[in-house]
Amino acid sequence: MTDSGDLDAAWLPSAAFRAVGSRRSLVRAGDGPPAETVYAELADACERFGGRVVRDGGDGDAELVLEPAGDDLGDEGFALTRRGGTTTVTASGERGLLYGLFHVVRLGEDAFRGERAREVHRPALATRMLDHWDNVAVHPVMGQVERGYAGGSLFWADGRARGDLDRVRAYGRLLAACGINAVAVNNVNVHETEARLLTDRIGEVAAIADVLRPYGIRTHLSVTFAAPMVLGGLPTADPLDGAVRDWWAEATGRVYEAIGDFGGYVVKADSEGQPGPFAYGRSHADGANVLAAALEPYGGTVHWRAFVYDHRQDWRDRTTDRARAAYDHFTPLDGEFAPNAVLQVKHGPMDFQVREPVSPLIGAMPRTRLAVEVQATQEYTGQQRHVCWLGPMWSEVLRFRPDGGVSAGRLADGLVAVSNVGDDPFWTGHPLAQANLYTFGRLAWDPAADPHAVLDEWIALTHPGAPARLADGLHAVLDGSWSTYEKYTAPLGVGFMVQPGHHYGPSVDGYEYSPWGTYHFADRDGVGVDRSAATGTGYAAQYADPWAKVYESPETCPDELLLFFHHVPYGHVLHSGKTVIQHIYDTHFEGVAEVEEARRVWAGLADLVDPARHARVAERYEEQLRSAREWRDQINSYFLRKSGVPDERGRTIH
Amino acid sequence: MTDSGDLDAAWLPSAAFRAVGSRRSLVRAGDGPPAETVYAELADACERFGGRVVRDGGDGDAELVLEPAGDDLGDEGFALTRRGGTTTVTASGERGLLYGLFHVVRLGEDAFRGERAREVHRPALATRMLDHWDNVAVHPVMGQVERGYAGGSLFWADGRARGDLDRVRAYGRLLAACGINAVAVNNVNVHETEARLLTDRIGEVAAIADVLRPYGIRTHLSVTFAAPMVLGGLPTADPLDGAVRDWWAEATGRVYEAIGDFGGYVVKADSEGQPGPFAYGRSHADGANVLAAALEPYGGTVHWRAFVYDHRQDWRDRTTDRARAAYDHFTPLDGEFAPNAVLQVKHGPMDFQVREPVSPLIGAMPRTRLAVEVQATQEYTGQQRHVCWLGPMWSEVLRFRPDGGVSAGRLADGLVAVSNVGDDPFWTGHPLAQANLYTFGRLAWDPAADPHAVLDEWIALTHPGAPARLADGLHAVLDGSWSTYEKYTAPLGVGFMVQPGHHYGPSVDGYEYSPWGTYHFADRDGVGVDRSAATGTGYAAQYADPWAKVYESPETCPDELLLFFHHVPYGHVLHSGKTVIQHIYDTHFEGVAEVEEARRVWAGLADLVDPARHARVAERYEEQLRSAREWRDQINSYFLRKSGVPDERGRTIH
Repeated sequence: MTDSGDLDAAWLPSAAFRAVGSRRSLVRAGDGPPAETVYAELADACERFGGRVVRDGGDGDAELVLEPAGDDLGDEGFALTRRGGTTTVTASGERGLLYGLFHVVRLGEDAFRGERAREVHRPALATRMLDHWDNVAVHPVMGQVERGYAGGSLFWADGRARGDLDRVRAYGRLLAACGINAVAVNNVNVHETEARLLTDRIGEVAAIADVLRPYGIRTHLSVTFAAPMVLGGLPTADPLDGAVRDWWAEATGRVYEAIGDFGGYVVKADSEGQPGPFAYGRSHADGANVLAAALEPYGGTVHWRAFVYDHRQDWRDRTTDRARAAYDHFTPLDGEFAPNAVLQVKHGPMDFQVREPVSPLIGAMPRTRLAVEVQATQEYTGQQRHVCWLGPMWSEVLRFRPDGGVSAGRLADGLVAVSNVGDDPFWTGHPLAQANLYTFGRLAWDPAADPHAVLDEWIALTHPGAPARLADGLHAVLDGSWSTYEKYTAPLGVGFMVQPGHHYGPSVDGYEYSPWGTYHFADRDGVGVDRSAATGTGYAAQYADPWAKVYESPETCPDELLLFFHHVPYGHVLHSGKTVIQHIYDTHFEGVAEVEEARRVWAGLADLVDPARHARVAERYEEQLRSAREWRDQINSYFLRKSGVPDERGRTIH
Repeated sequence: MTDSGDLDAAWLPSAAFRAVGSRRSLVRAGDGPPAETVYAELADACERFGGRVVRDGGDGDAELVLEPAGDDLGDEGFALTRRGGTTTVTASGERGLLYGLFHVVRLGEDAFRGERAREVHRPALATRMLDHWDNVAVHPVMGQVERGYAGGSLFWADGRARGDLDRVRAYGRLLAACGINAVAVNNVNVHETEARLLTDRIGEVAAIADVLRPYGIRTHLSVTFAAPMVLGGLPTADPLDGAVRDWWAEATGRVYEAIGDFGGYVVKADSEGQPGPFAYGRSHADGANVLAAALEPYGGTVHWRAFVYDHRQDWRDRTTDRARAAYDHFTPLDGEFAPNAVLQVKHGPMDFQVREPVSPLIGAMPRTRLAVEVQATQEYTGQQRHVCWLGPMWSEVLRFRPDGGVSAGRLADGLVAVSNVGDDPFWTGHPLAQANLYTFGRLAWDPAADPHAVLDEWIALTHPGAPARLADGLHAVLDGSWSTYEKYTAPLGVGFMVQPGHHYGPSVDGYEYSPWGTYHFADRDGVGVDRSAATGTGYAAQYADPWAKVYESPETCPDELLLFFHHVPYGHVLHSGKTVIQHIYDTHFEGVAEVEEARRVWAGLADLVDPARHARVAERYEEQLRSAREWRDQINSYFLRKSGVPDERGRTIH
């Protein structure tokens, strides 16, 4: 369960356990699965590093004690103290002990030095979830994992659950170590085979849940809103129909017979062709609540996605703005959702572009439970062939205050990421993309955390005892990588200049005349989407002040979002002092230069990194550089041909 | 074998045989397969329409006599005479009698009126061939039939030959009736499964050949140049290697054991990823000749495709011009190909666009046998969802004289079409696309024929006894349909403004920054590709005079090819008197109006056409109209945004 021949240890190499494994430890806890895990982890570490661990009654000389406490730290919180040579972790619940153990692991030798006043750690968000867009049966277009860039699925292969769950077990352990407590095991686009996981194939889900439970992780399932029809043979899936309500109640009861701590359902309804309540003239609250009612007796939750928009828009229609859709659909329903229904909202109003404003829906539904959804899988951010560490982007979202204030008021009840993990030996295809998964978990636990500190934490855990040259090099290639990616791709928040379908590589007009509601409106004079209230689609007015005012005018709109909110002439001068067109040229040349520099830095680390890992990253840098140059040249050529404005610095534009 | 419940009779409905079926006929011929077919056709028709047919010794009162003649009409020619109440068809070969019979069928009652001096009919081109791009195993991207728009394959299903060959038999009969004498049964992109048709699976090909033989059709096979390696286990496929030569000789010998009249091989080598002689530093003549040598003892032919170009071109590279490739590759090899090697050249220098100049390779290799390849399957011309009758386009190609003269000098030795037929009940998906198949066969027999007369012939045969309103209506919706399609798609010969991959529907920049060598270079000032010798890629100089001169200058270049040969400002005035930009707007509005009119005409024929057939066409007109409007609006918007020039007539451009 630590380093193994065919599976990368990621942020839990055995050396990370040296400090705890060389101590005398005492575990006082129940015998539930997470407590067993705590003991087993320590036992395993002690066997390797010469320490000792005992359960319950101890000999009094323990250097590390993990024990239950009556005080209310919540189900997952823990407290850490060090006094008189003993480091003590206390928790109200077994999961708290588990998180406490991994906290001590992260501290390493620091956990066993000096004195330490009592610190309480509690997750800021109750739900810290990964959604797997994994198909059970290989989809003819989307494959085994929709938008997956790390091989096949951890859970499924060729229509069935994988027999060997060792990898799932190792995955659960990695997730626990960064604080994730929920996993949805199948794609939100629920096809025919996957629909049946809810009923006659629930046993396959239960087997996965059994393996994840010891790591404090509850298992969730994506279901189709049409399940009462496609599985139950009912003539309708109308959420207000009594037979439909009964069907969900009965089906859910059977799910809990198989999985006592089942987390709940994830639903993509009335979205990109999936069925939903609109077919029956019902609201999304009606739809969510019928599932919530079925889950309520068992403590389950329905995650109801807010990704509802017209995906068959006519590009000629300038009055419809996809960015408005989620807010327009859902804010009228505030207060109508059941207490165990969570509205799952993408962080931006569009779809995981490299730069979007924070969705105005977040903060606009005070009487509704909300989870924010981000995308760890790099669909639009380089598909794990490019280095693009998303910590700073997610941190910006999590620190966003809809009222413009700086209060630490909680933005949402949960944070969800679309997983970037598959059956790739390095878990994430690109070894450096592991940093995204780790950072996601840590930010979900503490949204106020400094992402750069989390990055360094990941570096230190993944490369225990790394010399400064390695740690600095890793920090250098990761820390600015989101900004670098943004520089060489779609400029100034305009988004969607990607190849249709697979979304890798540039195609400036690829989505310009499409039905997807994704346009930049570039012409010979200017570019961008007017979303102002005064002259545009009115999207800017969905925000509360001060944001509504800030975004309304090109004079106050932040540069990086200018083309998302405004259509401006190429000669418009940014706050940076550059014209839009020169900004486009400059950033595209800079972005490529930054990739060249990162590749050079990585090459210089060859002596410090495992050869297979180094080679995998080096090979991906070659592709990233090729692709970045393609982005640079296509975008620059496109805008030179359209604007006719030459580069001030006379560089080559084709 | 005539009208059947589930298979459209196309141009051989039983009523087309009324005239011959109600006569007394005498057939004097051998007992080879084509002669048997002649007798069986007449017997079948007589049974239906009350006539009588006898073989050999007759009673002297026959109204129709078909008999051999010693005079040299060639293997396929025939003579027709009518004297004293007897219509006589004579031929040197059995296939000539078959073509003579179908000629009499086409004449109908006219064949039995008055006197008729001896007319001799001979095909102008020896090879009149259909290439099926049918895969045996379903290809993950390209499906059962690559670029097929008429359902599955006639020959193959799910990895095997179809058991039931009735449809192949009916197909052979249709082909014989329009003069086609060769069929290649598998895709030129030869994948793993298909490669084996040459060796252990030749029996499946032989079964098809047995069914086509009675219709005078020889069967051909697409093979992979790497066959000696992938099938023979040799370490090389070098055409100058003795073992390779021996392998081809032996494999070919076994093919002829299975199929005594096997036609030969079709090869796509060094083209879009297929293997070829370049890997061994050999020329394409070397490559073709090793296969030709193997076929020579048996009278077989190798069709060697000239579709060789760099499909991984860098769009930034303005010096490489894909249009030049075939000429540059092949003209240096003139005279080096074996007598039984035929160079198969696409009619244009690019790839079956709606408008291209005739390939300069045609006419530039006087010492090489040449076949011209056209595309009946409508890959770039509406995919059998749009009506696009290609007779006039093919006729323009066939009447083209490389030296600018008007001599009837033969352009090539053969004409080949990529088939548009599948297992669709109407054969071609769109019922009106049958006209393309028929027209192809008739033009291959007589390239000088008036295509419009061929169209009327097809109309009369397909709808025997059609009232004038139906015949006129069909003529109206078909005759101008190529021009209509051209109007609403890529303008003035520029080509390739299609969606990448599937090639259906508009994407103006879809191939602009691609590796495929397909660019239009539109910027805010103008559009088109400079292929002049003076300032461009020099492609125009590949033509002999007068064409080299004509194409060299925008002043003399025909309007419809202007943007193929020249990059001009949007304000450039065409010979038509319009500016380029206004031409773009006008033709796109006109094209859509013409589709609306054709749809209206078709709707008015509902009372005269079989309901299923009428409904199929009507449904496709809805899609054609939707698609044509999309083309119009995307192209017009693209060029308005880029040029900034408003439409003179103030019509809506989005």
